[in-house]
Amino acid sequence: MAGCFMTNFLNYHDRIGFDPEKFFKDTLFQSSRLLVGINCLEPGQIQHPHTHTDQDKFYFVIEGLGEFTVGEQTKEEGAGSVIWAAAGVHHGVTNTGDQPLVLLVGLAPAPRS
Amino acid sequence: MAGCFMTNFLNYHDRIGFDPEKFFKDTLFQSSRLLVGINCLEPGQIQHPHTHTDQDKFYFVIEGLGEFTVGEQTKEEGAGSVIWAAAGVHHGVTNTGDQPLVLLVGLAPAPRS
Repeated sequence: MAGCFMTNFLNYHDRIGFDPEKFFKDTLFQSSRLLVGINCLEPGQIQHPHTHTDQDKFYFVIEGLGEFTVGEQTKEEGAGSVIWAAAGVHHGVTNTGDQPLVLLVGLAPAPRS
Repeated sequence: MAGCFMTNFLNYHDRIGFDPEKFFKDTLFQSSRLLVGINCLEPGQIQHPHTHTDQDKFYFVIEGLGEFTVGEQTKEEGAGSVIWAAAGVHHGVTNTGDQPLVLLVGLAPAPRS
């Protein structure tokens, strides 16, 4: 995919969502090289630890508080934190706060859908 | 480069900088697949329009106000905005506010240094 969009500008506020069954995620922009998305976790919601074999990933905490696991490391992080999970490294997050946890995420290259 | 770091966790607050001569930039995490960095522009400072031939790029506005150009589009954007510049598309930004403009940026694949 060439990464051709109707606009090159958006605001994450317009793309926030919450799903009581499972954490919410949405793609903001995507090409073959890079996916930029948003993850929203309600208090207590979990993104179970998983591994991307061929993608490096980052999380940026926009709002809220989460306990992040990357490999053997587990840390509680709040707004402004950047978390890196290299390809092959197990990672996940739990919303440990009492407010929504809103994350900007990036994956490179983008997973094949 | 394998993307092996002393830590997988950091906060952008600890990496902010300002350079009166030229906008400040720093790399937070980097692998061959993905570079995540920070750009800081003082009021009036400019990142002149440029093109990455082989990299897709995004900006996320953490703090401040900037006028972004991507191809033929120019928009003033503030905190929470995500701006996408696909490979080959001219892009740049000017701090049009009266406060520092702090941007999270990502490039995939990472430029060769």
